Parts: sequence; C-alpha cells; structure tokens
Amino acid sequence: MAGPARDSGDAADAVARTLAVVGDAWTLLILRDAFYGVRRFEDFRRNLGIARNILSHRLKRLVEQGLFEKRQYSDRPLRYEYRFTDRGRDLFGVLVALQAWGDRWARDEPGRMTLTHLGCGRHAHAVPACSECGEPLDPHNVRVDPVPVVPEVRRRR
Amino acid sequence: MAGPARDSGDAADAVARTLAVVGDAWTLLILRDAFYGVRRFEDFRRNLGIARNILSHRLKRLVEQGLFEKRQYSDRPLRYEYRFTDRGRDLFGVLVALQAWGDRWARDEPGRMTLTHLGCGRHAHAVPACSECGEPLDPHNVRVDPVPVVPEVRRRR
Repeated sequence: MAGPARDSGDAADAVARTLAVVGDAWTLLILRDAFYGVRRFEDFRRNLGIARNILSHRLKRLVEQGLFEKRQYSDRPLRYEYRFTDRGRDLFGVLVALQAWGDRWARDEPGRMTLTHLGCGRHAHAVPACSECGEPLDPHNVRVDPVPVVPEVRRRR
Repeated sequence: MAGPARDSGDAADAVARTLAVVGDAWTLLILRDAFYGVRRFEDFRRNLGIARNILSHRLKRLVEQGLFEKRQYSDRPLRYEYRFTDRGRDLFGVLVALQAWGDRWARDEPGRMTLTHLGCGRHAHAVPACSECGEPLDPHNVRVDPVPVVPEVRRRR
C-alpha cells in the first residue's frame, strides 16, 4: 500500500499500519468468511467466487502476517485448513465496524444482509463502546494524546 | 482497488464496498485528523507531513465521495475548510476499531498513543457493542444472514 504505513515509527499511525495489513478487499472478505466458520480452501473459493490463484496468494499472506495458522486436516489427499490466530481473531471489531458503515452508507439495496446479536436476539449493528465502562464512544467524548497540532482557537468543536 | 468491490450487487460485500471508499492509508489518516478537529489544508499538511499534491488529491476524493464538504472561510486569500458530512462522520466506528487493533497488534512501541473516554475519564480502546442492547459483540454471539455456504458439520464452532 502506498502511503505512510511503512516509513514511520510514529505512534499516530496505528490506523495506517492496520490498513497495511488488512487493506485489501479480498483479504477482508476472506476474514469475514472466517468469522462465520469457513476454514477450507474450497469453501472460501465457492463462497467468494474468487480465482484459485488469488485466494491462494491471499491465504499465504494471511499466514505470513500471523492472522491465520495453517493446519493439516487430511493426509490423502493432503489438505489444510486456515484458523485464526489471536491476532487475526481480534480483527472482529474492525470487520463489524466496516460492515456497519457499509450497510448504512455504501450499498445499493439496504436490508438484504442482517447481523443478529444472539445475546438479545435482535437485528443489530456494531457501535463503538468504551473498553472500560461500556458506554458508547463518539467523536465528542474521546480525547487522543498526543493530539494533532491544531491552533487553539479551532480546537474546540 | 482491485477485488470484489465493484463487480457485485451482492449484499455480502458491504465490507468490500467500505474498503473501496476508505481503503487508503493517507485517506484514513486525514479522516482521523478530521475527527480531532483538523479542517484546513495547511493543518492537515503540517500534522501528517504529507505532500501537497497528495493531500490535495485525497481531499478532492473525500469531497467527491461525500465524506467531506468543502466550505469557503476566507475571501482574501481564497481559502476553504473541509468538514464532515453525516456519511463521513459515521466512519468514526471504523477509525477507532482500526486504531484499537493497530495499537494492540501492529505497532513497535506500545503505549505511546492513548485514547481517553471523557465520559469515564479512563484510558480506553473501542470495543464493538450491540446497537440494540449495548452488550459486547464477539464472533461467537452474532449470526449473519445470509450465512456463507459452509457444510453443516463444520458450521458449529
């Protein structure tokens, strides 16, 4: 990916570094299917309608980046499945955030895909909440340090 | 972006469509700064250390995609600022999810950048919560319909 992801040790670009890892549409679709329980090459291929060489390349990268681990499940024929590492599984929050925005703003036919929270049984989407108190986070109730340099007069929103 | 974002009306690819809009590291850094209150070309440029032509191109795209609106704030010299539309502001959840993952897994020096939830006053990161009941979402307590085609025997996790 072009951009700032590689050339900086600056703490401010965690966002860029995440994108450097997952910033590919096929990769995200593979991760999404993995959260639904898909683990095998043929199942990914069939679900996504993705070409074998592209799928093979993306799975290899996901293993190299430590998001999936590859496990043999059959001798004859020799077959592997792909399972989340902890690092990979922790992308769940990113996936459901992308999904929530995409469902709301970037689709032609709203309502065709639904996420159900089994805890309360309702159709839902993901909202960002505070890891410490559980209350919703929004642009007006968070502060990031260090903040970007913004002239004081314009910093208050 | 290469991949499935363009060629499908399938409801399953909201994720891919989101990435088609925001899947660029500079774009996400610009959006992140915008959430901190940055609005002006020179402030973006200084904070990000981004080349003028790249910044100019990204801001133009953000306006075209309906994430920012451009407002004149000075006659002499002629100057504009960039403000979120509702569609753009709603990317907050995506940004903080990327940030949370990046802080945890994709950085060299943990702890340098902190997010504080002003509601409870504590250092925090974003966790995905149910829009309906507020409880945390995780891969095991959500169901998505339609689900990918996975052989029944392997669907139970």
